Amino acid sequence: MTKGGPSSTPVAPGGTIGILGGGQLGRMLALAAARLGLKAHIYSDESDAPAFQVCAKHTLARYDDEKALDAFSASCDVVTFEFENVPAATVEILARRKPIFPSARALAIAQDRFDEKSFVQSLGLKTTAFAAISSDGEGEAAIAKIGMPAILKTRRLGYDGKGQVRISDAAAARAAFRNFKSAPSILEGFVDFAFEASVIAARGRDGRFAAYDPPENLHRDHILRRSSVPSRLSAAQCAQAKAGAESITNALDYVGVLAVELFVCKDGALLVNEIAPRVHNSGHWTLEACVISQFEQHIRAVAGWPLGDGSRHSDAVMENLIGEEAADWQALAAKGGALHLYGKSEIRAGRKMGHITQIKPMTRT
Amino acid sequence: MTKGGPSSTPVAPGGTIGILGGGQLGRMLALAAARLGLKAHIYSDESDAPAFQVCAKHTLARYDDEKALDAFSASCDVVTFEFENVPAATVEILARRKPIFPSARALAIAQDRFDEKSFVQSLGLKTTAFAAISSDGEGEAAIAKIGMPAILKTRRLGYDGKGQVRISDAAAARAAFRNFKSAPSILEGFVDFAFEASVIAARGRDGRFAAYDPPENLHRDHILRRSSVPSRLSAAQCAQAKAGAESITNALDYVGVLAVELFVCKDGALLVNEIAPRVHNSGHWTLEACVISQFEQHIRAVAGWPLGDGSRHSDAVMENLIGEEAADWQALAAKGGALHLYGKSEIRAGRKMGHITQIKPMTRT
Repeated sequence: MTKGGPSSTPVAPGGTIGILGGGQLGRMLALAAARLGLKAHIYSDESDAPAFQVCAKHTLARYDDEKALDAFSASCDVVTFEFENVPAATVEILARRKPIFPSARALAIAQDRFDEKSFVQSLGLKTTAFAAISSDGEGEAAIAKIGMPAILKTRRLGYDGKGQVRISDAAAARAAFRNFKSAPSILEGFVDFAFEASVIAARGRDGRFAAYDPPENLHRDHILRRSSVPSRLSAAQCAQAKAGAESITNALDYVGVLAVELFVCKDGALLVNEIAPRVHNSGHWTLEACVISQFEQHIRAVAGWPLGDGSRHSDAVMENLIGEEAADWQALAAKGGALHLYGKSEIRAGRKMGHITQIKPMTRT
Repeated sequence: MTKGGPSSTPVAPGGTIGILGGGQLGRMLALAAARLGLKAHIYSDESDAPAFQVCAKHTLARYDDEKALDAFSASCDVVTFEFENVPAATVEILARRKPIFPSARALAIAQDRFDEKSFVQSLGLKTTAFAAISSDGEGEAAIAKIGMPAILKTRRLGYDGKGQVRISDAAAARAAFRNFKSAPSILEGFVDFAFEASVIAARGRDGRFAAYDPPENLHRDHILRRSSVPSRLSAAQCAQAKAGAESITNALDYVGVLAVELFVCKDGALLVNEIAPRVHNSGHWTLEACVISQFEQHIRAVAGWPLGDGSRHSDAVMENLIGEEAADWQALAAKGGALHLYGKSEIRAGRKMGHITQIKPMTRT
């Protein structure tokens, strides 16, 4: 959308934000829209989508149902997404009638690990070493370039560790290449990082930028377990991380919240691991530790409102509740802190069921 | 409900909280329920009820529609209210099938200004001087007892200054008594208070009590304009105010959030002006300045969950947006602070359209 086009008209209170995806991110986006007097229309292909419970309207349909997508888009003032792996055809149908944010281009880049890393490098930001593997035989060349250990990942559609395998020796490499043969892949150098961090950033339709203090993130089995602010990043590293996120959002003419996942190396270097063109699990602590959460910031951005103040008033530690960890909700509710449960109808292993955030007075930014 | 009865079973995540009333209080209660993984079923007689936009289920029906009330109650695990003037017959129908909180008794006492003040005095708490006027001629006796200036109020159904008139002389008194003739009334002594305050308190099904720091409240034209914490109350006055609220909730075997409105006299005395057996406008700042808001506290209480920590991490000033004040939402959104708009379809003079809360680092409790 160009400036001055229909997308430059902000969505007034009473207007409708269309959200594709009905999981916990869509749910928390809908709740944030409600605070601003905006209605949420949730589109999901799951009949028990958690976000259906908190929205003014919902559509239950497949993501390739052109008629349903068209009617959905027509009923909204603007359309956004809770997940990045939206098929290009879906995006195209939605964009026919209404502004969509983030743009098709931002989604496309974030959907392909090779395009994403190439784009990030083109901005002068560091990433892990990487090489594309498109056909049989390129695997050997990639290993020669990257070395071992390395991580083989599908270029598309991986999340929470799905579609990736660590390669430590030639035998493992051969087995992995055989398994991945049909899928375009990327080989990434293994990074022995000090810790992980992320930047949750937002860019408004007016081009203004805001970023939260970068949290430090702990993963286990490829799933985020904990995000904490402040992180161990120095003030200079925080500024560098935010500046990197700003150059990414500017280069994409991005509108909305975007997360940049970082490896923090032992020598202090920051490597961009991944871009998520959406609100992000590592930003959930903003609900309690900031006046304007990442969810409201995203709604403000896509609705064409001024971005809110993303400054932090408290230190925070957010812990995810995975699978059975959410079963003992009575103990969790008694534990103190802000308990969030996502309204999922069934506990499953590895499923994000909720999170709990503890805040404390600020120690440092 | 007695302990050990059906009401002692907490509502598990995925369960449904029935909320009678679909205004901003019902809306914010529904949003709080969502955070805990609970569904809200809103019952309102207004087709454009703001709370309908954020709930899992809604019922549009009159408050005397026995069939609709019965079906509503059957669909919920527990029923609560966003307003106190629920007809006794409505409460009775709802209570047939499911636990209701607060109880019929608490609602009944809060519905009648004379009963309310008599009850408060019976606990040893101070109120303004008052006298009931039930029939012609009692007005003179009441004035003789209370003196002038005084406030004549209907015993029932007044809010935001509706159904009350100030009496300064004998002629005004005669006119007022003529106007109020048919309605049972109460004459209250005029209090030249230093300021107004309130206690937002909660009592769980287990009898535990929690109270927020009492805000100082400013009214204009009988409508709340601003609530601020900390107030000008001393630590001793805060403790006294909270203790008063605790004795009220204990005496009522109360479950849920209850607000006690106070006049703070120039000599430091605290007079109970009114009890609201519900979440209260003067507690909206708890959304930003506390980890657990009054809305979540109420949901926790009625759902049989442990009460949350009601302590405050920030100072706060909440300003209501009345009528046209909400029209310039773009300027309000740019102003900083947490903007809340209630999703009301029409701006009307005197109508509460939203509020905005600014927080700052704590100065004192």
